[in-house]
Amino acid sequence: MERVPFDRLEAEFKRILLNAGLTEPKADRTAALFAENTRDGVYSHGLNRFPGFVAGVQSGKVDPNVEPTLVRAFGALEQWDGHRGIGLLNAEFAMGRAIELARENALGGVGLRNTNHWMRPGAFGLQAADAGYIGICWTNTTVLMPPWGSAQKRIGNNPMVVCIPRKDGPVLLDMAMSQYSNGKLEVMQHRGQSLLLPGGYDDDGALTTDPGAILESRRALPIGYWKGSGLALVLDILASVISDGDATHEIGTRPHETAVSQVYIAIDVSQLGEEADQKIDAIVTDFLGAAPLDAGDNVRFPGEGMLAIRRDSLTNGIPVDPDLWQQLLEM
Amino acid sequence: MERVPFDRLEAEFKRILLNAGLTEPKADRTAALFAENTRDGVYSHGLNRFPGFVAGVQSGKVDPNVEPTLVRAFGALEQWDGHRGIGLLNAEFAMGRAIELARENALGGVGLRNTNHWMRPGAFGLQAADAGYIGICWTNTTVLMPPWGSAQKRIGNNPMVVCIPRKDGPVLLDMAMSQYSNGKLEVMQHRGQSLLLPGGYDDDGALTTDPGAILESRRALPIGYWKGSGLALVLDILASVISDGDATHEIGTRPHETAVSQVYIAIDVSQLGEEADQKIDAIVTDFLGAAPLDAGDNVRFPGEGMLAIRRDSLTNGIPVDPDLWQQLLEM
Repeated sequence: MERVPFDRLEAEFKRILLNAGLTEPKADRTAALFAENTRDGVYSHGLNRFPGFVAGVQSGKVDPNVEPTLVRAFGALEQWDGHRGIGLLNAEFAMGRAIELARENALGGVGLRNTNHWMRPGAFGLQAADAGYIGICWTNTTVLMPPWGSAQKRIGNNPMVVCIPRKDGPVLLDMAMSQYSNGKLEVMQHRGQSLLLPGGYDDDGALTTDPGAILESRRALPIGYWKGSGLALVLDILASVISDGDATHEIGTRPHETAVSQVYIAIDVSQLGEEADQKIDAIVTDFLGAAPLDAGDNVRFPGEGMLAIRRDSLTNGIPVDPDLWQQLLEM
Repeated sequence: MERVPFDRLEAEFKRILLNAGLTEPKADRTAALFAENTRDGVYSHGLNRFPGFVAGVQSGKVDPNVEPTLVRAFGALEQWDGHRGIGLLNAEFAMGRAIELARENALGGVGLRNTNHWMRPGAFGLQAADAGYIGICWTNTTVLMPPWGSAQKRIGNNPMVVCIPRKDGPVLLDMAMSQYSNGKLEVMQHRGQSLLLPGGYDDDGALTTDPGAILESRRALPIGYWKGSGLALVLDILASVISDGDATHEIGTRPHETAVSQVYIAIDVSQLGEEADQKIDAIVTDFLGAAPLDAGDNVRFPGEGMLAIRRDSLTNGIPVDPDLWQQLLEM
């Protein structure tokens, strides 16, 4: 693995995005998000996905220079249309609106329809936490997974995020409803690694730890079997109803994933109690106090591993696949 | 199994609750909720749990005749204190407030602190759906489950509900963050049945399908392994922050579970889009169209099985364990 400084990676992303027709401010923010995703170890939605994103802009799948517009407003809740613009920027806008609504109402929500892939879901949870708010968001996706009791893919993996601000680093739960996200399966396959636990079925209907076999069969396992299947279903209904946008079965009729529906919720913890910060910290401290199964190891809260990767990336440079890095320099 | 008509079961519950000191309206609603839970097949939080509930009232653990009071109001969000009253009635009140707030603001939320066990979580999702609203709610609990990477119980199983109104029967996702709820484990143990899939570890640290071994080791498996562990953590933080109430680690210091924290959210689908009803129905119809793994079987949406049990209970009487029924008649 080669190591590249954060600023260098961000600058290369920005150069290419400007060439692809993005305005300066849009290229700036999009490059920052792709670089931050890579810095935090989410390679599947950082450097690895960047060439595909640019191809989407060039093919017209993503309209790079539209702005979201307001559909309906209900005080603490708003519906916005993303006009199939850049998913990352629509997402950043929508969480920003949710934060503004939460500033006024303690709780703020935005339904965003007709948007594109937001790459790393957790980025928008972190956006809220960095502003001192709890951030919750989820998206529907195209058809990616069979419901429990079927081998026919029919539901999305509908990633959701809950991010909680905390002095010593946020809690960041960022999870797809499949046991392993498609991005994770792709990275593991690329590296030739097996999954720790079965993540789906092969073409013969047997549970497997081979990421390639799961990508091929398209039978990813929902978390908690029937529970994740049900959770994916209701997240799709909620995203589609709250945004008045398309559901997975409609998205799945298109040749590529677009016009997805998303929900953003921000909560101003400081309004809800005088010692909310200490409350959060005490819960995490107690969680970390659980005796580890293996001596010398420790229990980790969601997002803790990401913070360690971020520190390493900023100190030693971001690890990049040399082939992908070379490809980027030639774009 | 003996069969008992719904009205008869409800009347017995009410008689006993009046004797235990509940006012007439409170006895009426509490009896209805216990009877409905039993009618819908949730025996673990219906008839089976009723004697324990009454014992809690008699011992003073549950204060039967207090009313919830408002702590703070923020337009679409309110915080209420349940004063350790009857968990079922506090819950019904809180979802009722969330529905009223959603009527005005499309979205309504209530944080409820200092309340007691609400028995069947899904009851309050159904309350919203029966009124034409989406209902979302969750609770924290006492310490019930080890976090991923530990054998030491430290987090709650924090059940959550998403209930979506639908003409031909609501979608009702009602799930604990353990693969099997404590109530389900108790019922399976009582019946001498094994779990379909491993639901936790035995005292030797091996995965097991024996419900009794899991209840003994107190090592229930979180859904999706590390994901359910993380989700349980963030649901506890959210419940505690949004209600300004106690977290699992505080609840766990008491000799019995009380003063739990809960969140209720209602969404008025009719305000959010002109064809929201059809949108929901189309998603469920598509879901049900997935080819079943076994010919002759079919994929089921969450809550579908419950509706079948309800119909059977109302037609043929509610199945009751003869010993438990006799015990009830003698209370």
